[in-house]
Amino acid sequence: MQAAILAVGSELLGTDRLDTNSLRITESLHRFGVQVRRKCVVGDDVEELATEIGSAHGRYPLLIITGGIGPTSDDLTREAVALALDRELVHQEWIVDDIRAKFARFGREMPDSNRKQADVIEGAEVLANRRGTAPGQRIDHAGGTIFVLPGVPHEVEGLIEHALEPWLESAVGAEAVEVRWMKVACVPESTLEQLIAPYFEEFAADGLSILSKPGEILLQLSGPSGSAEELALRERRLVELLGDAVYGHGRDDTLERTVGELLRDAAATVVTAESCTGGLVAERLTRSPGSSDYFLGAAITYSNELKSDLLGVDPRLIEKHGAVSREVVEAMALGGRTALGGDYCIAISGVAGPGGGTAEKPLGTVDLAVAGPDRKVRYLRVQLPGDRDRIRQQASQWGLDMLRRWLSGAQDPSAAHLAPRAVEVSRVGQ
Amino acid sequence: MQAAILAVGSELLGTDRLDTNSLRITESLHRFGVQVRRKCVVGDDVEELATEIGSAHGRYPLLIITGGIGPTSDDLTREAVALALDRELVHQEWIVDDIRAKFARFGREMPDSNRKQADVIEGAEVLANRRGTAPGQRIDHAGGTIFVLPGVPHEVEGLIEHALEPWLESAVGAEAVEVRWMKVACVPESTLEQLIAPYFEEFAADGLSILSKPGEILLQLSGPSGSAEELALRERRLVELLGDAVYGHGRDDTLERTVGELLRDAAATVVTAESCTGGLVAERLTRSPGSSDYFLGAAITYSNELKSDLLGVDPRLIEKHGAVSREVVEAMALGGRTALGGDYCIAISGVAGPGGGTAEKPLGTVDLAVAGPDRKVRYLRVQLPGDRDRIRQQASQWGLDMLRRWLSGAQDPSAAHLAPRAVEVSRVGQ
Repeated sequence: MQAAILAVGSELLGTDRLDTNSLRITESLHRFGVQVRRKCVVGDDVEELATEIGSAHGRYPLLIITGGIGPTSDDLTREAVALALDRELVHQEWIVDDIRAKFARFGREMPDSNRKQADVIEGAEVLANRRGTAPGQRIDHAGGTIFVLPGVPHEVEGLIEHALEPWLESAVGAEAVEVRWMKVACVPESTLEQLIAPYFEEFAADGLSILSKPGEILLQLSGPSGSAEELALRERRLVELLGDAVYGHGRDDTLERTVGELLRDAAATVVTAESCTGGLVAERLTRSPGSSDYFLGAAITYSNELKSDLLGVDPRLIEKHGAVSREVVEAMALGGRTALGGDYCIAISGVAGPGGGTAEKPLGTVDLAVAGPDRKVRYLRVQLPGDRDRIRQQASQWGLDMLRRWLSGAQDPSAAHLAPRAVEVSRVGQ
Repeated sequence: MQAAILAVGSELLGTDRLDTNSLRITESLHRFGVQVRRKCVVGDDVEELATEIGSAHGRYPLLIITGGIGPTSDDLTREAVALALDRELVHQEWIVDDIRAKFARFGREMPDSNRKQADVIEGAEVLANRRGTAPGQRIDHAGGTIFVLPGVPHEVEGLIEHALEPWLESAVGAEAVEVRWMKVACVPESTLEQLIAPYFEEFAADGLSILSKPGEILLQLSGPSGSAEELALRERRLVELLGDAVYGHGRDDTLERTVGELLRDAAATVVTAESCTGGLVAERLTRSPGSSDYFLGAAITYSNELKSDLLGVDPRLIEKHGAVSREVVEAMALGGRTALGGDYCIAISGVAGPGGGTAEKPLGTVDLAVAGPDRKVRYLRVQLPGDRDRIRQQASQWGLDMLRRWLSGAQDPSAAHLAPRAVEVSRVGQ
């Protein structure tokens, strides 16, 4: 089944509020295998509302409307639905009694304006609203169904539970969708598309969605009830193609949490020595409750003096090679590991901009090193696109991912196919 | 003028993502007096898209579309606009050259899939996208105008600035709405409402909006063209009532940037010594370009050992008073200032949870200290609401705000009316 969602209210067309009810409604619809094809926000204008209702109802068997059923003069959803379906509004006095009783419970008299909340679209079923005054309504019309719900999230929640979901249960059947997730770090979207090209030769593109943000991609496979096996097959193929780049299978997995779990499993600790990321890696690692089990601390060494004072980086190295160099970032990692006493140290130094780029080390050049037991060091230089924020975000992602691959024994230390200019080298430090 | 906004992308029809680009676009439209009448989200389906584009374009003189112009097979906005307007797509090879050059700058080859980003709707003006590969497009058709913009917020921002706003300027005229902003830190919304209650006795509530997020409130005063004087009067009154709590008058002002500017003006430097915030204060301070002028570095001391090793906190202090205590956080600030060599040191230690709370120091207890010249120290304990994320976010906000008030010579050191359980004390450390 396909559905459309309509949120009513001029306040949702301004600069500061979004229609969040639709997320909650969508969640319920998905559970019953109903697909949302369209979401719309229209202001408090009866003609515009009726036009939208008529056209959405004509195209999708299920239309869910939220908002515009309050007591004020700009609450026009009831009128608009009646207009769109060419039905009457029928005043039902028992609803007024009901609303009056609700007011009485708080020692208040019902204002006259609330009387209009008892106007019911001809033929509609009235849906009790236990958390507010205006009841919802359900109308079956021309082979489709329209739900009219309130706009207050808390009241919507109640009506989803007591009216929408029971209806979905009977109309569509039990929970019907299977979903699989894969989280991928440090692979540009266009590279990912190349890597998974064979997938599209073997499977239909349908059911796979790719959501990307800086340094991270979420792959989502979904299918109807009963498709679990098929999805598992598809997932295996994608993991085969993406290899070690897949770091998690939970929708809300984060790289910092994955790294934290690997550290916990290994009974190992981590520290960071950060320059251009300014503490972002440490901040991310400590977002997780319980991170004190594996995170000890960090030295944020923005100035060159602190790189020497806190991390013991030889000032001559900085003078000779610059703060953004393999020599310095490796020294930061090795020195940070010793000074802060962790099993692993992630070190990052780069040109986050907007200034500071040179021909040799342009904006976005980031050197990363991870030092580990036995003074082993891995080094990587990446060239990251975007502005200061994005460069820092991605740099933190690469730093965490280097440690993840080390801890998980990933066999591809070069990452060369992922970012052509990235070269990762393992060696033992002095 | 009236406008509609269309966001394209199946990922915006799921349970976790909302179209936020429309907020930023609406803000620009409002500045030019253009009213948004309708917002819609449609998935990656060329027929559905074309239907929506045709109907919105027919009803509103300005239609702004975001998303669906990437390189993948489900990027269909160009095709859908062409279909809706019955125009051809014309491939323009110079755009391919341009995109290829962008890839080359990062040492990468342009994947073939990006070629489709050079398809231009017949008669459209190509809008340069300095932050991404796909250019935007503007089409005048049947008396209306359609803008096609990317979906990535950062790229949308660039195109709003370089294409949409210049066009609005010429098509609709100079900015038609007056706006004033005030940014307030570390005042709970209910306290703020009490503080500004007299304002509502003197002025109409109309035109003042209050947008709050953890630890920060944005007040926005707006009025029609010509209301500048009236708004300035209202703004003065609000500043009078809120006093030192107002830290900025720019919509995009941030506390970290304000603190940075105060430090630069004072030719002073700052370092941080953080426990529960895990580097968030350092990370925020280094978000600003040029922050190396005043930020030297930080010691993130999550473990008690590092509090002693890096900051010289006497282990007996920690043993006696606990890591979350006035004694320890003051020692962190004084020790951090010496160890890291800054003029000021912000130190934070608190119970961010979810575990670790006690009857005496419940979840959300955060001790903050700032050490400055002549070994002066200011100390503050706050009790912060919310979960781990919100506690950390607010703690970083309080730490920055303590330094802001110190640097700006704010005369209210107690902050007692702002947070009843907050007590700030100045003293000279040993």
